[in-house]
Amino acid sequence: MDKIRVGLIGFGTVGTGLAKTLTMQAERLQQKVGLPIELSRVADINLDALPPEYEGVVFSKDAADIFKDPQIDIVVELIGGIEPAKSFMLEAISRGKHVITANKALLSIHGREIFEAAAAQGVEVGFEASVGGGIPVIKALKEGLAANRIEVIRGIMNGTANYILSTMTQHGTPFAEVLKDAQEKGFAEADPTYDVEGIDTAHKLAILMSIAYGRHVTLDHISVEGISNIMPIDIDFAKEFGYRIKLLAISRNHGSHMEARVHPTMVPESSMLANINGSFNAIQFTGDTVGDILLYGQGAGMMPTGSAVAADVVDISRNIISSSINRVPPLSYLPEYFQEPSITPMSELTCPYYFRVTAIDQPGVLSSVSGILGSHNISIKSMIQKGQQPGEPVHVVFRIHEASEASVEKAVAEIDALDVITEPTVKIRVLIGND
Amino acid sequence: MDKIRVGLIGFGTVGTGLAKTLTMQAERLQQKVGLPIELSRVADINLDALPPEYEGVVFSKDAADIFKDPQIDIVVELIGGIEPAKSFMLEAISRGKHVITANKALLSIHGREIFEAAAAQGVEVGFEASVGGGIPVIKALKEGLAANRIEVIRGIMNGTANYILSTMTQHGTPFAEVLKDAQEKGFAEADPTYDVEGIDTAHKLAILMSIAYGRHVTLDHISVEGISNIMPIDIDFAKEFGYRIKLLAISRNHGSHMEARVHPTMVPESSMLANINGSFNAIQFTGDTVGDILLYGQGAGMMPTGSAVAADVVDISRNIISSSINRVPPLSYLPEYFQEPSITPMSELTCPYYFRVTAIDQPGVLSSVSGILGSHNISIKSMIQKGQQPGEPVHVVFRIHEASEASVEKAVAEIDALDVITEPTVKIRVLIGND
Repeated sequence: MDKIRVGLIGFGTVGTGLAKTLTMQAERLQQKVGLPIELSRVADINLDALPPEYEGVVFSKDAADIFKDPQIDIVVELIGGIEPAKSFMLEAISRGKHVITANKALLSIHGREIFEAAAAQGVEVGFEASVGGGIPVIKALKEGLAANRIEVIRGIMNGTANYILSTMTQHGTPFAEVLKDAQEKGFAEADPTYDVEGIDTAHKLAILMSIAYGRHVTLDHISVEGISNIMPIDIDFAKEFGYRIKLLAISRNHGSHMEARVHPTMVPESSMLANINGSFNAIQFTGDTVGDILLYGQGAGMMPTGSAVAADVVDISRNIISSSINRVPPLSYLPEYFQEPSITPMSELTCPYYFRVTAIDQPGVLSSVSGILGSHNISIKSMIQKGQQPGEPVHVVFRIHEASEASVEKAVAEIDALDVITEPTVKIRVLIGND
Repeated sequence: MDKIRVGLIGFGTVGTGLAKTLTMQAERLQQKVGLPIELSRVADINLDALPPEYEGVVFSKDAADIFKDPQIDIVVELIGGIEPAKSFMLEAISRGKHVITANKALLSIHGREIFEAAAAQGVEVGFEASVGGGIPVIKALKEGLAANRIEVIRGIMNGTANYILSTMTQHGTPFAEVLKDAQEKGFAEADPTYDVEGIDTAHKLAILMSIAYGRHVTLDHISVEGISNIMPIDIDFAKEFGYRIKLLAISRNHGSHMEARVHPTMVPESSMLANINGSFNAIQFTGDTVGDILLYGQGAGMMPTGSAVAADVVDISRNIISSSINRVPPLSYLPEYFQEPSITPMSELTCPYYFRVTAIDQPGVLSSVSGILGSHNISIKSMIQKGQQPGEPVHVVFRIHEASEASVEKAVAEIDALDVITEPTVKIRVLIGND
């Protein structure tokens, strides 16, 4: 073997980041791996040629040219989406290529099929870039924390959502305005649904849970709420109470079952997660031996994600060179020990809550709302109404002590059915201690 | 091969942590590695027997019983100090055993000899626990960030020093009192010199620099100042200016030379490092592709350190099982590419500074001090004197704009030679931006 040959499908942002990284770091990587790592081929249906600096790289519009090249050792899929990404990966695997992807949507939905195909063919699947962008979070969890029962996973895993919440917090700007600005600046996608509705975060949580617990967790297992109904007033109230609002992925391991949820959360302002701002990501693990670990960095972007994909290329190259393919099982546990997950029903969770009720400002509203809360055994910690506008809608905020999701659901439904209520009640879970 | 056999030398805090971890996580590790990992032997000169829960483990007072056992695959050295730890490691290596250590003092002084001996014998050296306790920082740097030129290393790497500074910041208690309390609570060693004088931090920085840059960096290369002369008044002034005082390890990579220094530093209060409190550690890398990465967790302690040592056991076990010994070079770069370091002389650094001058409160002092600063081209940003005690010593604080260490050295020597000066001037470097 004289070198490791990489074929790249998708020359978009991350693909370009990988190509730049492999070029820029070529000498360094050879000094670490012992053989040159070469970007040999690139396929991209949207291009007619590569930029001139990639002169030696064979370009094609057809991904099949990459699988079919017997010289290619590693195929990197960076086109995103489900199809044709999935078919491309399975095709590459079936031809005995190792594969690398940053595609969290694909892995959180069809991961099992892909990992099983790879195991059957004896090839590797690298996916460091699928969670936390440039942060080496998958490697830390699989290898660095191998000797831990993971008790809690918590994280800010979507840079767009965090950028929006941070900007709302800093400038008091409404959600829609910040989103529009972020889209104009290229920080948010034209269709931001996955980012702001928590779906992208859920994709990532599914991957982390699978590794942490050795269970086949998919997107379907995860309860998801986004941030699009958060208003600056909620952020102001949160500040007043000593909290920041963050879109968190949370999983607690209860042994026989595990929580799996993504939702806006009020986080104590003194905590590390509260202080992760802008487009940064942070992922926190609590392990029974190690305690709390937090990993922080750029969760997206051309070069950070390129760094993570390149780390997978290095890892797999080392396994090729030392003939130790699948030396580490792709999901940490050996496939024969993998189990089905048992997810804690959301209705069984309990936590403190923040409610923002929007109601016509007239006598009796407070007593109706607090009566409903009381009838569901929900105990009120504090209540604030800002301003007074008799006959007009006003916001009234309730903080409640720990209550079950089931009671909260019912109580909020009853509150929202009151005649005086003008908008659906916004409810935000409050993080307590190590919850 | 039916199992991996581990021999442990040193059953102190970390040794006990490893034994507990291997026991507690036995099933999990087997499900990840594919074979049982067994703690087969323990040697400790200070014990007569192991606690009863380690019934199947062969105990000995003599470390030689471990090297001499042909069945032992991995020898873990957790006795600390230079000798006999060094001889034990070399002896184990010479007998073809893989070795694991948490001994940063040993590696930062004699690392080269140990790594060369291991390379000659074709065995592995694991040392994840030597930096950052339970934080998988060595693995992240060697593997996760492999495709990066590391530009900056910065970190809080000593939990005792950080605990002392955090407590001084929180309660305004003097250094000596906090230290005494920490010693009584078991958070600080009876001889705290290494921790509070920055030596332990320097050991760790030498290891990280070696990996990051592929150069033989040792303790001798690192300029070290401790925290024992920091007073609550310095912390109060820092707060007033929007800073926290932290004991930082700092290395910047200038290509042809690299900074290597450990000293108390004023860190902007909004930065992540400023908010690392208590005995936690945080290590930040800036890579040319990944940008800023920060890793946070418990930097010491029985179980966190046990988690890191166990991660090395897992890594080496996997290499044994898949016959891929030294698949990753122990210091990231292959030995043939290792170079000698060239360290930036401290006198060539420039940074903003905080000075606390202690002088008899009498007319003319300020003009003398500011005259000296001016004569060395040091430009004053602000000056504060708190209180007035004519004829008695008072603290006067100067903040200066960026100045060279050489000028600062000279100016401070001249200031301290003034008759009115009653104590050596305390100088603290101020971190700016990504400096």
